[in-house]
Order: sequence, then C-alpha cells, then structure tokens
Amino acid sequence: MSKILVGIDLGGTNIKIGCFDGELNLIRKESVATEADMGPVVVVERFVKAIESLVKKAGFNREDIAAAGIGTPGPADYKAGVIINSTNMPTFKNVPIRQMLSERLNCPVAFDNDANVACFGEFTAGAGRDVNDMVFFTLGTGIGGGIICEGRLIQGSGGNGAELGHIIIYLDGRLCNCGQKGCAEAYASASSTAKRATEAVQAGAESSLKKVLEEKGQISCKDVYQHLAAGDRLAKEITDDTAKVLAILCVNILHTTEPKKIVFAGGMINAGDILLNRIKDYFNQQVWKLKKEKVDICFAILGEDAGIIGAAALAKQMKNSRRKV
Amino acid sequence: MSKILVGIDLGGTNIKIGCFDGELNLIRKESVATEADMGPVVVVERFVKAIESLVKKAGFNREDIAAAGIGTPGPADYKAGVIINSTNMPTFKNVPIRQMLSERLNCPVAFDNDANVACFGEFTAGAGRDVNDMVFFTLGTGIGGGIICEGRLIQGSGGNGAELGHIIIYLDGRLCNCGQKGCAEAYASASSTAKRATEAVQAGAESSLKKVLEEKGQISCKDVYQHLAAGDRLAKEITDDTAKVLAILCVNILHTTEPKKIVFAGGMINAGDILLNRIKDYFNQQVWKLKKEKVDICFAILGEDAGIIGAAALAKQMKNSRRKV
Repeated sequence: MSKILVGIDLGGTNIKIGCFDGELNLIRKESVATEADMGPVVVVERFVKAIESLVKKAGFNREDIAAAGIGTPGPADYKAGVIINSTNMPTFKNVPIRQMLSERLNCPVAFDNDANVACFGEFTAGAGRDVNDMVFFTLGTGIGGGIICEGRLIQGSGGNGAELGHIIIYLDGRLCNCGQKGCAEAYASASSTAKRATEAVQAGAESSLKKVLEEKGQISCKDVYQHLAAGDRLAKEITDDTAKVLAILCVNILHTTEPKKIVFAGGMINAGDILLNRIKDYFNQQVWKLKKEKVDICFAILGEDAGIIGAAALAKQMKNSRRKV
Repeated sequence: MSKILVGIDLGGTNIKIGCFDGELNLIRKESVATEADMGPVVVVERFVKAIESLVKKAGFNREDIAAAGIGTPGPADYKAGVIINSTNMPTFKNVPIRQMLSERLNCPVAFDNDANVACFGEFTAGAGRDVNDMVFFTLGTGIGGGIICEGRLIQGSGGNGAELGHIIIYLDGRLCNCGQKGCAEAYASASSTAKRATEAVQAGAESSLKKVLEEKGQISCKDVYQHLAAGDRLAKEITDDTAKVLAILCVNILHTTEPKKIVFAGGMINAGDILLNRIKDYFNQQVWKLKKEKVDICFAILGEDAGIIGAAALAKQMKNSRRKV
C-alpha cells in the first residue's frame, strides 16, 4: 500500500493542509480557519480532524500517513519541536507542537519555521527545482529568509539561522522593529516600503500617493506599486530604493553561501517585472566584477502552496535520512 | 604500517609544509621560499622535493602519504583543482595544481582557498575545536572568510563562497579594492585601518601618529595599535570604527548561518584584548535582543600553523568521505 505525506502551513489566520504522494504530487488540499484564540490544544485537535477528513476524501486512511511536516511562524525551538510564542497567535506559548502532532497522527513530524519551509517548497518543486544551492527571501510585513546549501536547509546552530531581513546593510541606519539599526527589513519589506512612501508624502513630496494618504489615512505597499505602474515619480523613487536594498542583500548572500539561485517571494512580488528588473539592474551595478559567479535572481512560482509542499518535502527528507541511519 | 597526511600552505613568499599522523598530530614541519618567479612547474617540483625530504626526516617514505591537502590564495576553480591566477604569484596562471600534486605525490589531494583552509584548521584543532558551527575572519591586507555548518566547509555553488570581507555594511559607502562600495573590507582590514588613520592625520586630526606619517611617509595598522596602547585618541577612534564594522559582520553572519563561534585571525589580532573587547562590546550593543542566540567571539590560536593543519584535516576528511562512498 502506497504511503502518503502530509504538509501543514500554520498561519495566524488560516491553516493550509495538503496531502501528497511519495513523489510529492499534490493529491488534495484544504484551508481551515486557525481561530488561534481557542488555544493550541483545540486548534491542533481541529486541524488533525481536518487532516483525517482530507486523507479520507483522498481515498486513504490515517494509517497511510508515512510522515508529516509543519511550518509555523517563529520564534520556536525547532530542535526541541516547541513553539515558544507567536505574535499572531498569542495563546501559543511553549507549545510542544511536534510531539502533539506526532502522537495524534501516529507518524514522525518535521518542524521548521514558515520561511524555511516555504523555501524548501520552492527548492523542491518551484523556482529552485533545477539547482542545489538556493537562497530565498519573503517580502511581507518583514523579510524572512531561507538558505539551502547542497540540497539541505541551513538551520543554524540553534535553529535561528537565515533571519536574512536582519542583515545590516546601512551602519547606524533606520531603526528596525527588531531593535537593530540599518537592517534590510527596515528599508525593503512591504511595510517599510509603505512607511517610506508615507514619510515622503508627509514631508511634502509631489506624488499621486498624496490623495491616497488623504483618503485612506495611510499608504500601503500595494498602493506604491499601483502608482508606480501609473508612472508616479515618487513611487518610482521609493521602488528604486527598495530594489537597491534587495540587490545589496543579493550581493551579500552571494559572498556568503554563493547560491545559484536567489528567489523572492511574498505579497510584494505582485509588483511584477518592474520590481524584479530593478533588483537585477542594481545587482549588476553593485556586485564586484572580480569573479564570474553566475546567480539567477527570480520570483517564486508556487504562491501560497509553497508552505504545504515544503512541509511535505521536509517530511520526506526526514523519513529518507532516517532510513539511511 | 601507519599512514601520514601532508598539509601545504602555498603563499606568495613562503610555502609551509607539515607532516601529520592519522590523528592530525604534527610530526614535523618546514617552510621554504616560494620563489614564484621561477614559474609553477619549478615551484611545485621544489616543494615536492621538500615534502619528500620532510617525510624522510620524520621516519617515513613517500608511499606512506595517505593524502595531501593544499591551500592557495584565490581566485581558483576549486572544483576543477586549478589556480586561475594570483596577485602575489603572477606566473601562476591556469595551473592544474591538484592534478600536478596528485601525480607527483601519488595520492589524493584536497584543494581549497587559503582562508577556508585556515578556517578548517582552527575548526579542527584550534579555537573552534569544541563546536560544530563556526565562522572565521582573517584580518590582513583584505578580509578573508570561512564558514562551517555542521562540521563541513560551505564552499558555495562555484567554490567562491565565504568572501566575507565583501559583505556590504554601508550602502554607497567607501570604494573597496574589489569595485563594490561599502564592503566591510574597505573599513576594517589591516590596510583599510591604516588608510583611515592616514587620511585622518592628513586631514589635520591631532595624533601622535602624525610623527609616524612624517617620518615613514605612511602609517601601518601596527602603528595604529601601538599608538592605541599608548593612549592616542585618534588611534582609539580608528580602532573603534574598525571594531564596529567587525561587530556588524558578526551580527550579519549570526543572522545568516548562526555559528556558535566566530573566530578572528590574521596579523591584526596582535592588537590583543583591547580590539577583541571592543568588537564584543559593539556586537552586544548592536545585535537584536529578540532571541537568545549564544555566540562566542574570539581570536584564533593556531597562528601560522592553521594553514598546514587545515590542509591536512581537509585531506583526512576527503579520504574518510571517499571511504564511505
């Protein structure tokens, strides 16, 4: 009897679950509301039930689950399998999620942070499927990261590696939410991009975004890219600065783990080629010409499925490496 | 009959060679002048003869060499085993060093750049011997680097990883020798430290270094640290700026591969605790307080032997992983 893999993407609003065959082909997927205020025991119970129902609809039994993987927002102790706490799920404090899931599903469970898991998804079945070395940036409220060297995630000695948004690219620069100064995230995340646009308009810059600020009381990153597409000059300047910082992140990671591919994901990539091309232009301008490293900078292609695919792929890798032991 | 390992550290001025037992204990070492102007064939022939003589003096025969390792200054194609060219050895162009050595010594040869090899030496037998994840910076004319994750060197997809001196820490900052702007190397290498001191004195800063510049026509990094020890204020400012940039490098690498230990090496560490403590102070000031990563920042302990030890250790690792295949 063929075995199946389950991938879980636990978010503050929704939990996505997917059921995959041994070759990581998606059999069936579903999304359920998280309702984090019910507390971790109820939440886990609910999505375990959803998994059982999903597996049944796919024509399998719970016993057919060979392994499961789950990605959650940090901070967590990934080696111990415990969610320490979560900004978006305040009831989740010191939750031994791996053990809880493993007991309820009766299978081994792989556990990592959501950015690493989405990175592994794009690496396995998305934009990075043709390379062995990849770096991944998610551009959202913050900037998350993932690093793959020779086919394996770099998790760091304490499971806190690849916090790539907090690479400092400007000594004594803007204050970041994390408390450091000059982090890339303080300039080039979606919310920092929106913030810089708001500040510029408030400081009197001429822009069609002025009306947005007046009407909505705030400017979003989406507004910036919409007005960019419509030819607004300030939106272009703000985008240029964002692209320049993202290009510096690419230069820095090239000189660190030297990936073959750098993949950007997250809501901000909806800005499309206009953003991607600016990042590439700045990268080519700013990177040294001493050696001929070839690195492909591109956008992610799996969208919201990256999390469940990555979680299932991690479950498969864990299962395989156990077999070898 | 027990087998021995040979480690070679090929520099522009001297070639260091060492002969080790299977447990990487140094049996005997020697240093010979490189005389790079004789060309690669003669140079290799000379140091192969020196190795044969060294092995004999240690009580072994050439046939007892199980494997050898060599570190050379870049750029090179480490996967192909070829030195592409070298600033300090202009006659070395497209030299298939690994094959040449392997044929002459009749054993497998490990080959990597000198910073990676010294990093692996400190990791195996020096400051990093008690950890599995380490990052290494050499502070000399430039800043070299090495990264170890879970016991293995991260070489990058094309063998050009860990060029850590060229991480940009200041957007649009000082022009680096590599052509990029704002590299850490442009601020905090030994030569950049000397350059910043010279510039400050030329711009009229009050300092006891003024006399050095007048008498010698230049200020060296060693001068800066000597005048620092004697209490000169400018020397203190210059050192503070160097320490701050090195601390940012530590922050950035912590958020990338999250090592347990960060090890500084190279001539500049002769400045001693006064420099090390400033780096640690700035690191603690500037790093986030969100998570409790523990990282130990320290100086290398093997001195000039790091290269030959690392080369022999790489030879051993290569030999062992071959056995497993």
